[in-house]
Amino acid sequence: MAFPWPEVGTPLADVITPMPVIDEDRIARNIARAQTYMNSIGRAFRPHIKTHKLASVAQMQMDHGAVGINCQKVTEAEAFADAGFADILITYNILGAAKLARLRALNDRLQVLRVVADSETTVTGLAAAFSAARPLRVLVECDTGGGRVGVQTPAAAVALARAISAHPGLRFDGLLTYPAVGGAARVEAFLSEAMAGLAAAELACPVRSNGGSPDLWQAHLVPSATEHRAGTYVYNDRSMVRAGECAEEDIAMHILATVVSRPTPTRAVIDAGSKALTSDLLGFAEYGEIAGLDGARIVSLSEEHGVVDLSHCSGPLPQVGDQCRVVPNHTCVVSNLFDRMVFHRDGKVTRVEDLLARGTVW
Amino acid sequence: MAFPWPEVGTPLADVITPMPVIDEDRIARNIARAQTYMNSIGRAFRPHIKTHKLASVAQMQMDHGAVGINCQKVTEAEAFADAGFADILITYNILGAAKLARLRALNDRLQVLRVVADSETTVTGLAAAFSAARPLRVLVECDTGGGRVGVQTPAAAVALARAISAHPGLRFDGLLTYPAVGGAARVEAFLSEAMAGLAAAELACPVRSNGGSPDLWQAHLVPSATEHRAGTYVYNDRSMVRAGECAEEDIAMHILATVVSRPTPTRAVIDAGSKALTSDLLGFAEYGEIAGLDGARIVSLSEEHGVVDLSHCSGPLPQVGDQCRVVPNHTCVVSNLFDRMVFHRDGKVTRVEDLLARGTVW
Repeated sequence: MAFPWPEVGTPLADVITPMPVIDEDRIARNIARAQTYMNSIGRAFRPHIKTHKLASVAQMQMDHGAVGINCQKVTEAEAFADAGFADILITYNILGAAKLARLRALNDRLQVLRVVADSETTVTGLAAAFSAARPLRVLVECDTGGGRVGVQTPAAAVALARAISAHPGLRFDGLLTYPAVGGAARVEAFLSEAMAGLAAAELACPVRSNGGSPDLWQAHLVPSATEHRAGTYVYNDRSMVRAGECAEEDIAMHILATVVSRPTPTRAVIDAGSKALTSDLLGFAEYGEIAGLDGARIVSLSEEHGVVDLSHCSGPLPQVGDQCRVVPNHTCVVSNLFDRMVFHRDGKVTRVEDLLARGTVW
Repeated sequence: MAFPWPEVGTPLADVITPMPVIDEDRIARNIARAQTYMNSIGRAFRPHIKTHKLASVAQMQMDHGAVGINCQKVTEAEAFADAGFADILITYNILGAAKLARLRALNDRLQVLRVVADSETTVTGLAAAFSAARPLRVLVECDTGGGRVGVQTPAAAVALARAISAHPGLRFDGLLTYPAVGGAARVEAFLSEAMAGLAAAELACPVRSNGGSPDLWQAHLVPSATEHRAGTYVYNDRSMVRAGECAEEDIAMHILATVVSRPTPTRAVIDAGSKALTSDLLGFAEYGEIAGLDGARIVSLSEEHGVVDLSHCSGPLPQVGDQCRVVPNHTCVVSNLFDRMVFHRDGKVTRVEDLLARGTVW
């Protein structure tokens, strides 16, 4: 039996739950505002599509002035290349024959493809898969405090840039970092020191890519950067509100849920569990909150149930069968759980769109 | 471009990562062992398919002697009905016209369909959708300490059973609970008191369904139960080992991952993040461990990266490009992230199977 996705014009109150829904006006406003800011500081903007995995949203981002898109996996880049996007950065160390073969095919058909590397092993693998006829552009990923991947020092960045440049199939194209929250000064210090080292080594460094939604509005504090990448800003979420990066009314994704049980006077159970919200806490004590119901906290999740503590609520409490809107902790991971996304405006469904590359592995 | 799932005979070392893989021998052993125990205590066994969402695994469970299957969503039940399963219990309060219409269609074609209810609102909705020509079997869900859904007292269970019995379209068929870990005594006390109340009200109570993998091997401590439900036991995971319910060598699902970065002497980064492992902690301090690498702990996840702390490891450390096997905290939620599952035996791929009803919403 075909799955009955809501038709255009369906009131949100009639949308089957659990279902993430995207506010058309808020997403447009978020995209415009970020691009306007990047324009005002003379910074190229490269949105990360991992947050939405939607061709229409990436196209809106391009139409507003983005220079290209950012992907995290080869399959994401393939899907967006198929959808017509011509300038793609994959911010990942790509390893292994199968992925490298696909990467080469991508490089043959895209206008601009860039990847990152943070080790000689990654560089050696890339070098073996590409030739001078159509070299691959490689950025050196730097750890400027994020504590994830990346070379640890500006000197190591210069050394790896030199190694990349030594391979005819590769082109050293610059530096990239994903900083920790609030790390603008550290990012700037790392980038400027590495740029000085590269200049001394006579290596051009056209791209200096900085990133993150939590750092988006501090992008001007990193003057050495040429571009900024961000994903979450398009939807926003509780973590972005807490970081002071947006207001509650800038959150474009909510998850519609239905109260399926009211076992006690202070407990409600909704039909959104970890398979709809994910269990990302991001430092919060709860798994999300309920819009318009002050004090309601989602205190535990099982796979298909969310337990809501109502003991701190005043005013009328939701009853069994009532629909509610969950404000998620982290929107990027919610997208990954659903195959399609429902958009709305003025309380009615405007469209439904398939996600690209959801459920693909690499 | 088609996605290159591994062919039969592919060595696991050549499987593209990140990828969950299922050990054929371990899953068969887990299924046989649980069924043997249930047979030995004279308890019907009803596996929950939410853990695997795979027709072949559900069929193995039936072939070993399960009485039927347990689903959590209408779409799961539909997919397994399509695959030929005739006795399905949906352990969920089903609300709303759209879901009730689908539930009615399911009831028309299945040999046995049961659902649960824990409120008058749920019962009223069900009653309006079913008629005496083909009544729906309903169990009263009881909260025996799990703190999720369920009526709070045996007296409330009897009252709701009476309400169900009053509707010609519904048939009260018994009681169901999903207990907290180790709650056998509380479950038995609740069930036996409710059964006495039902007997006094002259209401037959043929089914008393108890559940949970953490309680599986304590099922004999609840003599009032007629059946037991469990999902996780089929794969097991770190949480089951910690609970003492299985040994490390009973874990049938691992996630193959590749080391993509070794930024520091004590840090490795793998290509399995929250979009491969989920961020379920289940009380652990880390997001999983690495099989065969004692002391390695996955200390943080971003969407496509897992950061592994190696500072407590002795012996050779993994290098960039090395494959490793992640032991997940919670297997049920990993299944939900992938569209297909890879099986193996003796280090080689035996088959690849599509999941049923992954990414469906309700």
